[in-house]
Amino acid sequence: MNIEKLQARLADFAKERDWEQFHSPKNLSMALAGEVGELLEIFQWLSEEQSQRSALTDKQLAAATEELADILIYALRLADRLDINLEEAISKKIDKNALRYTVEASRGNSAKR
Amino acid sequence: MNIEKLQARLADFAKERDWEQFHSPKNLSMALAGEVGELLEIFQWLSEEQSQRSALTDKQLAAATEELADILIYALRLADRLDINLEEAISKKIDKNALRYTVEASRGNSAKR
Amino acid sequence: MNIEKLQARLADFAKERDWEQFHSPKNLSMALAGEVGELLEIFQWLSEEQSQRSALTDKQLAAATEELADILIYALRLADRLDINLEEAISKKIDKNALRYTVEASRGNSAKR
Amino acid sequence: MNIEKLQARLADFAKERDWEQFHSPKNLSMALAGEVGELLEIFQWLSEEQSQRSALTDKQLAAATEELADILIYALRLADRLDINLEEAISKKIDKNALRYTVEASRGNSAKR
Repeated sequence: MNIEKLQARLADFAKERDWEQFHSPKNLSMALAGEVGELLEIFQWLSEEQSQRSALTDKQLAAATEELADILIYALRLADRLDINLEEAISKKIDKNALRYTVEASRGNSAKR
Repeated sequence: MNIEKLQARLADFAKERDWEQFHSPKNLSMALAGEVGELLEIFQWLSEEQSQRSALTDKQLAAATEELADILIYALRLADRLDINLEEAISKKIDKNALRYTVEASRGNSAKR
Repeated sequence: MNIEKLQARLADFAKERDWEQFHSPKNLSMALAGEVGELLEIFQWLSEEQSQRSALTDKQLAAATEELADILIYALRLADRLDINLEEAISKKIDKNALRYTVEASRGNSAKR
Repeated sequence: MNIEKLQARLADFAKERDWEQFHSPKNLSMALAGEVGELLEIFQWLSEEQSQRSALTDKQLAAATEELADILIYALRLADRLDINLEEAISKKIDKNALRYTVEASRGNSAKR
């Protein structure tokens, strides 16, 4: 996925519609949260088993796909507005998690540290 | 960003710790929402102006960077578990939005359609 | 507001529809979050000023009223399932906040402690 | 629970600290969502069974109690700022749900209508 390209496309999209005025980081974080709320609604009454890919109906999977796309779109747009290098941020966070959640201490244990 | 590579790294991370049992799509959607909640907490009392990159303190920016990384990590992991092609999903969604929010109808107007 | 009465009404509502199977605390927390997502969508592109009661359209106010009702309904239901005394919990939390955010230290300052 | 009394206490709390400037409906909806995110974090890796009152540890229950209190506090405060009568709103919503989700159509079926 070429993030910069997608971000440029999203920036153009907003600019053409004069939507930059709405796209403050504060507002984008709210829009992101709104989309995550819609994702939760898909899974809220399903058991964990029923939420697995193999158990979802086509309609549920299509809905989840669309919500995940919306979530990514707002996350990319927010990262762009904050001038955050997402790839670097993710990579750093995985390294940090590897130190915090060592294999020995965390095997089979989901406790937050 | 090489999404497949990052997803493979996250899958290994979970496997090594025997965390696959926790990573149902239902649970991952909740974890994603939890991280978005932390992102909101950074911006909740800031004005839109204060939420702009140029106005954030280093600490606020570092916190936003880390939360965005967490959000992406869970989104990538969820897409992997659901076997969703994120790049394709995002591209399709942008096309759909272009039809729904035409430049003419949406200029300067954030109304949902 | 008679909380116990409302909770009894909500419990009956669920029981009559055989919905108790869906109302685990985990699921109710997700449903609550879904409703909060819908609340955020009302305010996400509004400025703080535009979100004030006096500036909202009737439609926006009606939508916010309905989302707040949904949020309270799930919060009351969750408290019931967890056997939490909400009134006591709220009162204790306000006392705790009074100690944590003293008037002297917090005047005009929204910083989390 | 005497809602008006609690709302008056919360209004005084904010006024004494000169926090009214921060308590726009937009900001309060974000703060509410932040607290809901913390609630989700308690339940995200638990199974539905493990999320039941009888299975929670004292620490988990205390955490859920505190998050629910925070959620209610922000919901009450937001209702106050929007001049919404919560009791009436909840009652109306339950009536509406009774029509939308009739016992016959919804028995054992969580589908949204």
